Amino acid sequence: MNNTFKEIQSITIIGKGNVAWQYNNAIVNLGINVNCISSRGEIKEEELKSDLIIIAVLDKAIEEVAGKLRIKDSILVHTSGTVDIEVLNKIADNYGIFYPLQTITKGIQINFSDVPLCIDANNEKALASLIHLAKRLTDKVYEINTSQRKELHLAAVFANNFTNHLLGISKQILERENIPFDIIFPLINQTIEKAKRNNPFDVQTGPAKRQEMAIMESHKSRLDDDEREIYEILSRKIIKKQDSLKDNK
Amino acid sequence: MNNTFKEIQSITIIGKGNVAWQYNNAIVNLGINVNCISSRGEIKEEELKSDLIIIAVLDKAIEEVAGKLRIKDSILVHTSGTVDIEVLNKIADNYGIFYPLQTITKGIQINFSDVPLCIDANNEKALASLIHLAKRLTDKVYEINTSQRKELHLAAVFANNFTNHLLGISKQILERENIPFDIIFPLINQTIEKAKRNNPFDVQTGPAKRQEMAIMESHKSRLDDDEREIYEILSRKIIKKQDSLKDNK
Repeated sequence: MNNTFKEIQSITIIGKGNVAWQYNNAIVNLGINVNCISSRGEIKEEELKSDLIIIAVLDKAIEEVAGKLRIKDSILVHTSGTVDIEVLNKIADNYGIFYPLQTITKGIQINFSDVPLCIDANNEKALASLIHLAKRLTDKVYEINTSQRKELHLAAVFANNFTNHLLGISKQILERENIPFDIIFPLINQTIEKAKRNNPFDVQTGPAKRQEMAIMESHKSRLDDDEREIYEILSRKIIKKQDSLKDNK
Repeated sequence: MNNTFKEIQSITIIGKGNVAWQYNNAIVNLGINVNCISSRGEIKEEELKSDLIIIAVLDKAIEEVAGKLRIKDSILVHTSGTVDIEVLNKIADNYGIFYPLQTITKGIQINFSDVPLCIDANNEKALASLIHLAKRLTDKVYEINTSQRKELHLAAVFANNFTNHLLGISKQILERENIPFDIIFPLINQTIEKAKRNNPFDVQTGPAKRQEMAIMESHKSRLDDDEREIYEILSRKIIKKQDSLKDNK
């Protein structure tokens, strides 16, 4: 129905960080003008006369920034994977979430057409408007509720943040013997592709999965304390998970 | 020098597992005949009249299998990332390592041209012969000593086995909210590409890196005990590593 939907034609982004920068670039590419403002200091009412206001600041600052706003007809969204949608409910009649499920670094422009955008809103009209804009930015638009969004963010921590730290350790180990990091890239590629095409637990390999205790002891003797702690707990969890899979068969 | 090098023209593979299967396929593709034999039971001397004997069995069985062999002129190798080269020194005059740095699953044929092969040998002639064969199998041939090989295997455990387990947890978390695993694939791809192009520690993101304690507490409340233990230790290690990087700047 036409009257339940309003096309977003002007946008204000509040924030100066990575997400603000990426959204700004992607939206300008659509031919939509963007008004970028800082979250610091006073925000004037006339700066907020856009169809959509995007708060793109650190999670812990969202509520404070929102509290400084006077919103009339605009839709107000934040971009966080963890902050409740309800922190916006006293600020605007139409509000929602515009959460990009991607690791975002300022200065490295992302191909937004491949970024999953996770959308939520407090009413159907705002939802339809946000989804319409999102679909102009990317092929991957997902309508998600608060609980799903938080679970997504958590899954992303394991798949991105923790994985990245393990790859850092892998590089650190190789450097001790002057081995170039790229020797291990084919292995990493294959690991990821195999994990995507299967349930990762079903294609687990390695000494922990095979419970090769002698190899694990020898490995631990080569690690520093921090590496060893991670090695021990992940090996233990792999053994436990693989045992539980066997029991269920 | 021509007299220091012998082209390998016949090969015996001992073993029936994943690595044996992959080597068999890749070597047959070169037009070299392969004699595949089981490591169980007696192994007759006439079955070992090949230029190269590859022991491709579980690490813990290598020494026992080697002990059953009578080798004359052949080169004898094993394929392990962890077992000492010296377990072969009483068995053969020419011996070495033919270690594929890849996660190998039986039945899923690998494109061997992209598998790094790590080669070691007890003398120059055997080394030259092994490298010559390896270069026919793959563009990525590395001459590595025992210490490097063990470090490689260890780095592979972090980059493959542990990463795979984390991706399994990521999927498990998403399933609790009926979210398809593939929503997170663009994030995984970007994480890996960024980690390869940088020192992963330098491009770390996430709540632990930013020391967002409230988010981490909220995350932990959504996890089961095993997931939470991993979450806690990896978050702690990320914080510690990022602090040490700051201190060094």
